[in-house]
Amino acid sequence: MPLHCLIRQTRIILAPTRKSTGTHIVRRLLSQGKMEEKLVAVIEAKRFVRDCFLAAKVKEENSQAMADLLIEADFRGHFSHGMNRLEMYINDLDKKTTNGNIEPLIMNETPATAWIDGRHGLGVVVGNFCMDLAIRKAKAVGVGWTCAKGSNHYGIASWYTLRAMKEGLIGISMTNTSPLMSPTRSKEAALGTNPLSLGAPAANDDSFILDMATTSVAVGKIEMQKRKNEPIPMGWAQDPSGHATTDASVAFETGCLMPLGGEEVTSGYKGYGLGALVEIMCGIMSGSNYASNIRKWTHAGADQLANLGQCFIAVDPNCFAPGFEDRLGDFNQLLRNLPPSDPEKPVLVAGDPEKAHMAKVEQAGGINYHENQLKTCADLAERLKIKPIQFTK
Amino acid sequence: MPLHCLIRQTRIILAPTRKSTGTHIVRRLLSQGKMEEKLVAVIEAKRFVRDCFLAAKVKEENSQAMADLLIEADFRGHFSHGMNRLEMYINDLDKKTTNGNIEPLIMNETPATAWIDGRHGLGVVVGNFCMDLAIRKAKAVGVGWTCAKGSNHYGIASWYTLRAMKEGLIGISMTNTSPLMSPTRSKEAALGTNPLSLGAPAANDDSFILDMATTSVAVGKIEMQKRKNEPIPMGWAQDPSGHATTDASVAFETGCLMPLGGEEVTSGYKGYGLGALVEIMCGIMSGSNYASNIRKWTHAGADQLANLGQCFIAVDPNCFAPGFEDRLGDFNQLLRNLPPSDPEKPVLVAGDPEKAHMAKVEQAGGINYHENQLKTCADLAERLKIKPIQFTK
Repeated sequence: MPLHCLIRQTRIILAPTRKSTGTHIVRRLLSQGKMEEKLVAVIEAKRFVRDCFLAAKVKEENSQAMADLLIEADFRGHFSHGMNRLEMYINDLDKKTTNGNIEPLIMNETPATAWIDGRHGLGVVVGNFCMDLAIRKAKAVGVGWTCAKGSNHYGIASWYTLRAMKEGLIGISMTNTSPLMSPTRSKEAALGTNPLSLGAPAANDDSFILDMATTSVAVGKIEMQKRKNEPIPMGWAQDPSGHATTDASVAFETGCLMPLGGEEVTSGYKGYGLGALVEIMCGIMSGSNYASNIRKWTHAGADQLANLGQCFIAVDPNCFAPGFEDRLGDFNQLLRNLPPSDPEKPVLVAGDPEKAHMAKVEQAGGINYHENQLKTCADLAERLKIKPIQFTK
Repeated sequence: MPLHCLIRQTRIILAPTRKSTGTHIVRRLLSQGKMEEKLVAVIEAKRFVRDCFLAAKVKEENSQAMADLLIEADFRGHFSHGMNRLEMYINDLDKKTTNGNIEPLIMNETPATAWIDGRHGLGVVVGNFCMDLAIRKAKAVGVGWTCAKGSNHYGIASWYTLRAMKEGLIGISMTNTSPLMSPTRSKEAALGTNPLSLGAPAANDDSFILDMATTSVAVGKIEMQKRKNEPIPMGWAQDPSGHATTDASVAFETGCLMPLGGEEVTSGYKGYGLGALVEIMCGIMSGSNYASNIRKWTHAGADQLANLGQCFIAVDPNCFAPGFEDRLGDFNQLLRNLPPSDPEKPVLVAGDPEKAHMAKVEQAGGINYHENQLKTCADLAERLKIKPIQFTK
């Protein structure tokens, strides 16, 4: 990983499990042992993603929205949720479990709320529609609260909170996901990683952007330990009997993440409660699929509809005490200035690791992609007959 | 503790540290070695609390509100937040850092929001006012979001979410609290236990009521291990160097709780992020004190104003997909029916331990109070010259 992410859990780029077809360029680079990471300009990465969706017969506006969403994730250092997922979205379009050109529909509306049917469109199309509606409502009555059923994976949760922040509002976003987490005391997974994000603007271009799964860690972290042949800490994942394990291989095979907090003795039931809270705000409120009823999602795409539920909230801080942004800036600095246990590791605020990564990308003039990722991109270019991704150096 | 609380962290009843004056009844019972726990009827417990506040010159309505709040906590098994805190509230009134008779003031209002000045009144008076206003707004426009500065400790967070649930709404409530938790990587505490609660009604008298601190555990749990001379698990608390410790005495002396998730390797930064989220929704939004600026609160009361910030949200689930309560009931049952790792320990839903405790109280005909608690009550009765608490048996 290019950055140790403090606030957002890092995920490794998973190599595609299907048999690869490869391209000549990638093969040559690999055979020369030259390709560990390659730099791709942000604009070129977006061009490539947009072209993939256009080739998959998604209209211009929606293809651009997908490009902006996925490359923003990579730009911020969340490689698991960017280009890494491109193939999965394309496969879902191929299998007709996602409709790339349909628009969301408002099913019910009040001055502060709206219930939306995403009609199995692209997650970002549903999400942007819902957050923009929430923003308009927040500007009119102080709060906008929208909830969608019939949605698909919507990328990083913070994409939507950033949208609210650009309007000077506080944004909140949550989504349910495929079952992967075992509720406290359960042998089986029943909830997803169910992430939540809250973003708030602060003075002097500062901000607070929390974007976190309600599980202890992501599967990718377990796979990384397995590859290194190293144990995992207690509280990350369970074995088949439903108890915490330190064996990375057993944990990876079992596929049951533990909630934030880990075991019951370290209050894992709170993380479980938060995962359930997200499910209630998303699946239960919207009437989408929920909990173990949600399909699995793999790199090969899925034959079933996802029918995810999502929640988008915008709040105008100016409705409350004047000076919100100044106080948030002061709060952030108070936290950053706390005496660290290890002088090498300063106290951070949610969103700081992403800011550091974005600065690094700006400085380098592009995003560093791993060879496995670029191989998948080359395969996709060949399959969709589009111009392969171009490297800056 | 009368119940192992799964969802809400349990806290032991702390013995008052000041020199006790005691009463004849309590002394006699103690000397006879008869008093471990005594049963007090709910109505009598409320009578006693109300009489204490009346004696402290708090008006009838507000005294009753305090009685209802504190005894609801005990009824639900959250003894740390009930009668256990009575003396602290009384001492704050004595020291004039709480005004028992002042009413909250609306400073700004939109159809969906309100900013309130609690004017250093009783936390429950501010909280009830804010949640009732949020409920009215939710009924009118779908969501009500209120935020108060100038408040005091408001008891259990779920008291306010229960208020929204009684109206068929989803309730959310949060408060900032005195600094006690070390942000990830920090040697010093800067955030409180910053609890949050979400309550939602389900069909057939079922419900989901999450009420959790964003720290890993409460100080009381550490004190319990110290008394038993047993270690604490990694991830509960820090030593003076800012590292996790398993030494209960060191942890108790240091007084730096770790956030939910514990150490950085087990994603404690997410719990820290959640604690900060609560602070932003409460202190930063309302313009109250925040983070390390909040005073400490002890059994002796405090000389400084608390000026806490609190947030109350009500949402009408009927604005979204019809059938919310049925789906939530189904979701709860899906979770409860998961195969348990240990057949003796079924999977629970947030609020289930409280339901079990309430049933136990109903069956016993009262609440079982610990001898230390009853001693404090006897002292208070003597000090305030009111009728001592009467036991059922």
